[in-house]
Amino acid sequence: MKKIMLTGDRPTGKLHVGHYVGSLRRRVELQNTGDFDDIFIMIADAQALTDNADNPEKIRQNIIEVALDYLACGLDPAKSTLFIQSQIPELCELSFYYMNLVTVSRLQRNPTVKSEIQMRNFEASIPVGFFTYPISQAADITAFKATTVPVGEDQMPMLEQTKEIVHKFNSVYGETLVDPKILLPENEACLRLPGIDGKAKMSKSLGNCIYLSEEPDEIKKKVFSMFTDPNHIRIEDPGSLEGNTVFTYLDAFCRPEYFPEFLPEYKNLDELKEHYQRGGLGDMKVKRFLNNVLQAELEPIRNRRKEWQKDIPAVYEILKTGSEKAEAVAAQTLKEVKAAMKINYFEDQALIASQIEKFAK
Amino acid sequence: MKKIMLTGDRPTGKLHVGHYVGSLRRRVELQNTGDFDDIFIMIADAQALTDNADNPEKIRQNIIEVALDYLACGLDPAKSTLFIQSQIPELCELSFYYMNLVTVSRLQRNPTVKSEIQMRNFEASIPVGFFTYPISQAADITAFKATTVPVGEDQMPMLEQTKEIVHKFNSVYGETLVDPKILLPENEACLRLPGIDGKAKMSKSLGNCIYLSEEPDEIKKKVFSMFTDPNHIRIEDPGSLEGNTVFTYLDAFCRPEYFPEFLPEYKNLDELKEHYQRGGLGDMKVKRFLNNVLQAELEPIRNRRKEWQKDIPAVYEILKTGSEKAEAVAAQTLKEVKAAMKINYFEDQALIASQIEKFAK
Repeated sequence: MKKIMLTGDRPTGKLHVGHYVGSLRRRVELQNTGDFDDIFIMIADAQALTDNADNPEKIRQNIIEVALDYLACGLDPAKSTLFIQSQIPELCELSFYYMNLVTVSRLQRNPTVKSEIQMRNFEASIPVGFFTYPISQAADITAFKATTVPVGEDQMPMLEQTKEIVHKFNSVYGETLVDPKILLPENEACLRLPGIDGKAKMSKSLGNCIYLSEEPDEIKKKVFSMFTDPNHIRIEDPGSLEGNTVFTYLDAFCRPEYFPEFLPEYKNLDELKEHYQRGGLGDMKVKRFLNNVLQAELEPIRNRRKEWQKDIPAVYEILKTGSEKAEAVAAQTLKEVKAAMKINYFEDQALIASQIEKFAK
Repeated sequence: MKKIMLTGDRPTGKLHVGHYVGSLRRRVELQNTGDFDDIFIMIADAQALTDNADNPEKIRQNIIEVALDYLACGLDPAKSTLFIQSQIPELCELSFYYMNLVTVSRLQRNPTVKSEIQMRNFEASIPVGFFTYPISQAADITAFKATTVPVGEDQMPMLEQTKEIVHKFNSVYGETLVDPKILLPENEACLRLPGIDGKAKMSKSLGNCIYLSEEPDEIKKKVFSMFTDPNHIRIEDPGSLEGNTVFTYLDAFCRPEYFPEFLPEYKNLDELKEHYQRGGLGDMKVKRFLNNVLQAELEPIRNRRKEWQKDIPAVYEILKTGSEKAEAVAAQTLKEVKAAMKINYFEDQALIASQIEKFAK
């Protein structure tokens, strides 16, 4: 069986370092292994519209930002198909038929949907499109026959819903859809990178994100304002790593080669952590190191982004070509789905023949 | 503004006399007035699948039955576009975006959905597709820019939902969709013709329908077994018209010219009713008259059906041609919808130009 990866992001803003370590960096690594027969990276504008229906302009403006972030991180259109969800009408048709295979109460039990509804203060006024988006995700995943879906742990219930739809469809209509597997991030710190204020959720409105397109002085300012151990007041005090954002970021970003380069007096991150816990290591020194690390990590990304920014029509062309390729694949799956459901009447010569016979009697 | 009619039926069985007097007869009359610029008659297979997902064969088999019934009743492919819902993918896409404009609680309040859920004993296990079908109906109606939707009174809440979606869409994205009007049946008896057993609902499982394709001896048998007034025991007893199925059917089917032809001793239906209520008129005589009326009404329908049954490929060709025409119309509406939502990115030169400018700074 072919190995096919599908993943994507909602274009509701520029991507930040949380997206990078949580998903994007891994995606690029996986892309470059050459292990996959096909990789589909979706800009999920249609899904973003489910809770932004009255602000389509926000989605519209951010599609290009996300595309630039993708290219900046090293997603390569020659290896990965970058496409825009709304340009693949077949996904709506698949969703439509999958909706018959899921009950309302099953959707109501979905923990991800439950918590997202709470987060958005929707309660009584949940848009139907938002409520049903686990079904739409199943359409996204199955349309491309994805075998591998690299997402965060919080998305596990969504993938469970997809698997249920796959099993139900295949048992009712015959083996047609591919059962996908989730691929979770390996690094604990990457599962959910906190904001620079230590809050679990990074968000534009909280102003606690470092964006992939951030300029060097802005990165520095943000690193130096980072939340550490509030009880680590004097340098000689022992410091705690627990909930210490600077160390969480180092866990996510630091590579061994950064020590000889930026902090040669320590062998590795373990030694640095030990010194911090023992006392005698100041926050400023660790922040300076993290700033160097982040600058080193983000500089090539920012530079690649600036190159692409000079050629916006080329970026649209990549998305257009990608969307055309994605649509062809989704159309083939839809054709198979409709054939399995036997609703391809006009192509079904056996049906017409049987009806002629029935009425000849 | 153009006058456009849309209506249709779920292909879950052959059509019966209830469909005929409740909707089909009027449809043919409206078609023949020439008042409409376009008439779309939809075989709603996708909607039928929402509560028949595990029995697609039933839907598949009944599409041709419904098409034959349509042609038999006098729907004329030269004047009315007969098409199959599932062959118009644009309807799924419209549904998908309309779902963002309706809340879950609004759907839960829909009285038609409520009673249909009860009727099907769904309760906790309502398929999502069934739950959301008022939104899918809004897609059907608006895709064809229907101004007139001739349906029964029980469908009024569905049309209300469509009107709400039209208003919401137009207010959020700008004037795009056409606000439809409901056209209710004029004749009281036609609103909901009872089964031959007097039960409000005609259904195949109850065996209480007279089908449009029924043979003469079967019609006769069914008419003679009809529910009348259980207290009208002897001919001389006064009879009641209330809930008397034979008289309800006469209200729905009888024309003035049938009296000189089949029952010349009465001037009209009022006189017949009066005699029945007064006493001295036996059920058998009224049933014989109703049988003559129904035979006269159904014979040309049955004969036309038999003619069409001889040429099934022609019927499929009508549906195929109709579906192609319907799809072209729906595609144009979808194009307008996407342009209003501004999600037609690749055609939107202004968007690309503004992005170039933004990143040139």
